[in-house]
Amino acid sequence: MGQQPITFLRQVMALCTYPNLLDSPSFPEDAKKRARRILQACGGNSLGSYSASQGVNCIREDVAAYITRRDGVPADPDNIYLTTGASDGITTILKILVSGGGKSRTGVMIPIPQYPLYSAVLSELGAVQVNYYLDEDNCWALNVQELRRAVREAKEHCDPKVLCIINPGNPTGQVQSRKCIEDVIRFAWEEKLFLLADEVYQDNVYSADCRFHSFKKVLSEMGPEFSSNVELASFHSTSKGYMGECGYRGGYMEVINLHPEIKGQLVKLLSVRLCPPVSGQAAMDIMVNPPVPGEESFEQFLKEKESVLSNLAKKAKLTEDLFNQVPGIRCNPLQGAMYAFPRIVLPPRAVEAAQAHNMAPDMFYCMKLLEETGVCVVPGSGFGQREGTYHFRMTILPPVEKLKTVLQRVKDFHIQFLGEFA
Amino acid sequence: MGQQPITFLRQVMALCTYPNLLDSPSFPEDAKKRARRILQACGGNSLGSYSASQGVNCIREDVAAYITRRDGVPADPDNIYLTTGASDGITTILKILVSGGGKSRTGVMIPIPQYPLYSAVLSELGAVQVNYYLDEDNCWALNVQELRRAVREAKEHCDPKVLCIINPGNPTGQVQSRKCIEDVIRFAWEEKLFLLADEVYQDNVYSADCRFHSFKKVLSEMGPEFSSNVELASFHSTSKGYMGECGYRGGYMEVINLHPEIKGQLVKLLSVRLCPPVSGQAAMDIMVNPPVPGEESFEQFLKEKESVLSNLAKKAKLTEDLFNQVPGIRCNPLQGAMYAFPRIVLPPRAVEAAQAHNMAPDMFYCMKLLEETGVCVVPGSGFGQREGTYHFRMTILPPVEKLKTVLQRVKDFHIQFLGEFA
Repeated sequence: MGQQPITFLRQVMALCTYPNLLDSPSFPEDAKKRARRILQACGGNSLGSYSASQGVNCIREDVAAYITRRDGVPADPDNIYLTTGASDGITTILKILVSGGGKSRTGVMIPIPQYPLYSAVLSELGAVQVNYYLDEDNCWALNVQELRRAVREAKEHCDPKVLCIINPGNPTGQVQSRKCIEDVIRFAWEEKLFLLADEVYQDNVYSADCRFHSFKKVLSEMGPEFSSNVELASFHSTSKGYMGECGYRGGYMEVINLHPEIKGQLVKLLSVRLCPPVSGQAAMDIMVNPPVPGEESFEQFLKEKESVLSNLAKKAKLTEDLFNQVPGIRCNPLQGAMYAFPRIVLPPRAVEAAQAHNMAPDMFYCMKLLEETGVCVVPGSGFGQREGTYHFRMTILPPVEKLKTVLQRVKDFHIQFLGEFA
Repeated sequence: MGQQPITFLRQVMALCTYPNLLDSPSFPEDAKKRARRILQACGGNSLGSYSASQGVNCIREDVAAYITRRDGVPADPDNIYLTTGASDGITTILKILVSGGGKSRTGVMIPIPQYPLYSAVLSELGAVQVNYYLDEDNCWALNVQELRRAVREAKEHCDPKVLCIINPGNPTGQVQSRKCIEDVIRFAWEEKLFLLADEVYQDNVYSADCRFHSFKKVLSEMGPEFSSNVELASFHSTSKGYMGECGYRGGYMEVINLHPEIKGQLVKLLSVRLCPPVSGQAAMDIMVNPPVPGEESFEQFLKEKESVLSNLAKKAKLTEDLFNQVPGIRCNPLQGAMYAFPRIVLPPRAVEAAQAHNMAPDMFYCMKLLEETGVCVVPGSGFGQREGTYHFRMTILPPVEKLKTVLQRVKDFHIQFLGEFA
């Protein structure tokens, strides 16, 4: 998609990989300092050694320091677990939470639309997927009344124990208000639900009137009744934000209020796979410990970071504006994350044609779009949506000019499609 | 443990990580050539992009070419799956094979002693662990009569479907003869068992009268009745051999004779976690595609490789010889892998003392060894052993002089221990 890696990250990674480069004058001193620090914490001073199953100590300390700076409330390195991307962390936590059979099977509440990792892992673990619907008419907001409905109905056939939140939303791009997060925490406390906060898009917030609030921060500020009791796991990743280093599979989770015995079981479970990739752990360290003012690399780092983020913000606006000019497409503001999830109105004749092809109507639409324009988007049915509504998910990652072309093609296609099935 | 990384591997990895280095005169041309080839196959020419869930195409092709050279029989890149270390591959394959409940629960045959990944994953998946015992009196050989006994007894309470083999053995270090592998394959064919060949120590063979034979090669040479029917998954890793790059979590599996529909399910399952770390995939590429005669880096590579392997061979012999000088310790030849698994005779009074401490006798012994000498070894009960026998596992990885000190301390401790509990 043309997004370039952050130079500082790659420099530190190269120094860690091949420490002979520590003598090279072509690498900045601050990058060398970071690399030496990471290597000193690795067995044999090498990225090639196994680390502890929970992750390299100094990297967990850096993650805790990052969270402390971000939230203004302390984080404990002992609660940080480095993971193989966020997916691995989410899977692991769900694995220790899911149990039972019949009516005591664990129910896991997930948003609809959702990121399909959740439905896949729940199916793999034999958990019950409990859907709660985001409010499309209200910018995909999370409504606590809807959580209550979902948990009430779920209790008739399973044991709801976990509530998953994706904030900023994937695929829906909403950013939750502080008020909403407080309501969700209160609900989790009342219902004794384990909160699972997927916050991998925390650096991807574009709307001027939105801010990212971590569940950890809000929980910590709600007083001891909540902060000492509500169990929470929050996830982050090197794959999103302005780094976009998906291939390194770096991630962490912070888990709070977990019973010490369960903590022991969690580490035991993690140790079966030995350790997360140490290169991904190093990438995570650089992400949470980037150059600061006064350091040699700071200016270039800041320029690169802001360029990625301001471009994403521009593309978010562009996408929303263009989609909302098209008759039969309605797109909520892309407050955060990296996707548009517009609603498309499909004419009854198109729905019939899809049924004749034995396809979901939005799948039929997306396949035609792909065949006729070369643009590939994912049908809403892959993420879940209210019965009778249709959507697709599109990333906003292409470079601005390419994205404009893509949007124009979707627009032209859509108008032609409406004509064809009018 | 003082083992240095292979320079060529780290050079290619550094070039892939920070491609600006491709212009640097301090990197050899053959390393640059490898790096360019890997990067060209990566999305956006970057290790930071997601790869296909099965792994980067050109790396799977290189793995297939490596297997073809190794075995003299062709390998198909389509049967190669890159993994997050071998543990991840083994877990994934077991996940698709295990099913059922009650008497139809899947039984998985594993050697005793075993590498504890197996027991952990079987317990996680709810499979039935079916033990077959290796023949300690016969150099830890695998005896097909014992397989027959194990499967016959297992059929009374589960459905044995999978046979796991570790060759060279961990923790037992034996290298299987070709004859033995043929017998095992015939047995798997008769019993319709899926063969799971853990061959991560294939480069670690030290005894002059032993050679590594891959299950794939032997199977392919046994004629179409076997080669077209017996399902086999074989695993390899960047963590062992002469590379020892554990931290990168690189691995592959080759899966043959898998039904096309199951293949589809396997890829679907893998795709939930997106992809294995691309840096680990790159490390695997270098492992299967090292410098060849005529290339600039070949001589240094060969020197480094042979230094690691000849040192390991020397340490294997040293360890075996020293242990067998100690009264009450008996150690089979370390034909391969990286461990000694000596049998220790514990006096009845030591067994009683252990029981008084509520500990397994070999755990009691290993804890005393640790406390009194600082040497940390793992009790045989962690790997499984015949009732009433005791062992410990020790790696042979420390540098020669340190290993000599360690062995001397174990010897002195053991003699003193025998005296104490005489």
